[in-house]
Amino acid sequence: MRHVRVVLVRTSHPGNIGAAARAMWTMGLTRLTLVAPKMFPHEEATAMAAGATRILATAQCVASLDDALTGAALTIGWSARPREFAGRVLAARAAAQEAVAQTVNGEVALVFGTEMSGLTNDELARCALAGAIPANPEYASLNLAAAVQVVAYEMWIAARGEAVWTSPRFERATHDEIEGLHEHARATLTAMAFLNPAMPKRLMPRLRRLFGRAGLEHEEVNILRGILARVDELLRERRRAAGK
Amino acid sequence: MRHVRVVLVRTSHPGNIGAAARAMWTMGLTRLTLVAPKMFPHEEATAMAAGATRILATAQCVASLDDALTGAALTIGWSARPREFAGRVLAARAAAQEAVAQTVNGEVALVFGTEMSGLTNDELARCALAGAIPANPEYASLNLAAAVQVVAYEMWIAARGEAVWTSPRFERATHDEIEGLHEHARATLTAMAFLNPAMPKRLMPRLRRLFGRAGLEHEEVNILRGILARVDELLRERRRAAGK
Repeated sequence: MRHVRVVLVRTSHPGNIGAAARAMWTMGLTRLTLVAPKMFPHEEATAMAAGATRILATAQCVASLDDALTGAALTIGWSARPREFAGRVLAARAAAQEAVAQTVNGEVALVFGTEMSGLTNDELARCALAGAIPANPEYASLNLAAAVQVVAYEMWIAARGEAVWTSPRFERATHDEIEGLHEHARATLTAMAFLNPAMPKRLMPRLRRLFGRAGLEHEEVNILRGILARVDELLRERRRAAGK
Repeated sequence: MRHVRVVLVRTSHPGNIGAAARAMWTMGLTRLTLVAPKMFPHEEATAMAAGATRILATAQCVASLDDALTGAALTIGWSARPREFAGRVLAARAAAQEAVAQTVNGEVALVFGTEMSGLTNDELARCALAGAIPANPEYASLNLAAAVQVVAYEMWIAARGEAVWTSPRFERATHDEIEGLHEHARATLTAMAFLNPAMPKRLMPRLRRLFGRAGLEHEEVNILRGILARVDELLRERRRAAGK
């Protein structure tokens, strides 16, 4: 990701620069180049960057797109609308894969135009590839920082895969614990007169299916057996009361 | 997509509601439910919605998360941070695929928490699935509307695929046109004394490789042969001038 620069061309609203910086850093991108921004630095940029102000602090400001692209071996210009003379056009996912593959050999630049009209035809023509985010053809106008977010997200996945946080692994119940639970349930449900052993219908298979799908944990078997044991106790108390 | 609702819970900044609406509509999502928003309607929401104000106009405001989720057959709560008691956790792409598959049978709700801390543990526990956007573990805090954008983007792709705009198809050059070009180039480059037929080195194979990679169009062959013809003319003029 150190070989990737995000280039924002003639951005009008400083808040969008900040929001783009935040989008970049959430996806591990750190190098931001600004081509002739209307206002920068600016307090709105800082506010919208939230925890990514370091991206703004190290951002480079240059006067022209060519200055921003110097040294880049792969340049991808992003456009929401068709252009007559575009060369190869790739969807975001494929473009990100190509970009990440290219970082092994050289610098990659991801280039975004203005809020109102994107890159000019001339600017897009200076890029080796056109990138496009699949979107609603009735309204394909993503906010600038939102477009940076989607592209950065695809870059992250192309580079690092789709790992996300997971819930902690609790100890799984063993086969014999699970069979013990079903046996206990069958006995208690019979004692409760909810299950009639002479006409069991499909109750036990349905319960097996439910708990099978969930994948029971050791602790959960203990909780469920605790509930059953409490019902057993209530049934005994009732018998004692009835016996009085 | 008509069966998908986006639910924003206790959103603080109305601008984020508008930006989320814009993100939704760029990806074909239209149904927005707001649970106890701090300020709505609000001019900042309208401004940030840009061309998606219709999403705001039809948004529903409700008092509780349960009200927002009534009737939903699949509820996905989004979280950037690990939760101890989460059940299944899916990355955005897999979650979107499951959500789109579910829309055949029922309603789907995509649930997003507050800007500051996301969904509470209790709110997330009320959702059937936890969704997570793969992101930089050092700073996984996407802006609310940016998170909606990424999730909506994955929903669009899961439902509609990755088709994007393409550059217009121009007429491809035929085999014989391309061979005619190479023959012409060989002759002219020889006449220019740039190519030495006795020691051709690798010039012609390199040119073949370049134009082969590009995939020549009919019109491009005409342009290149026009340039060669102009060089031929200059060579003839020079010969005439030298003959005087």
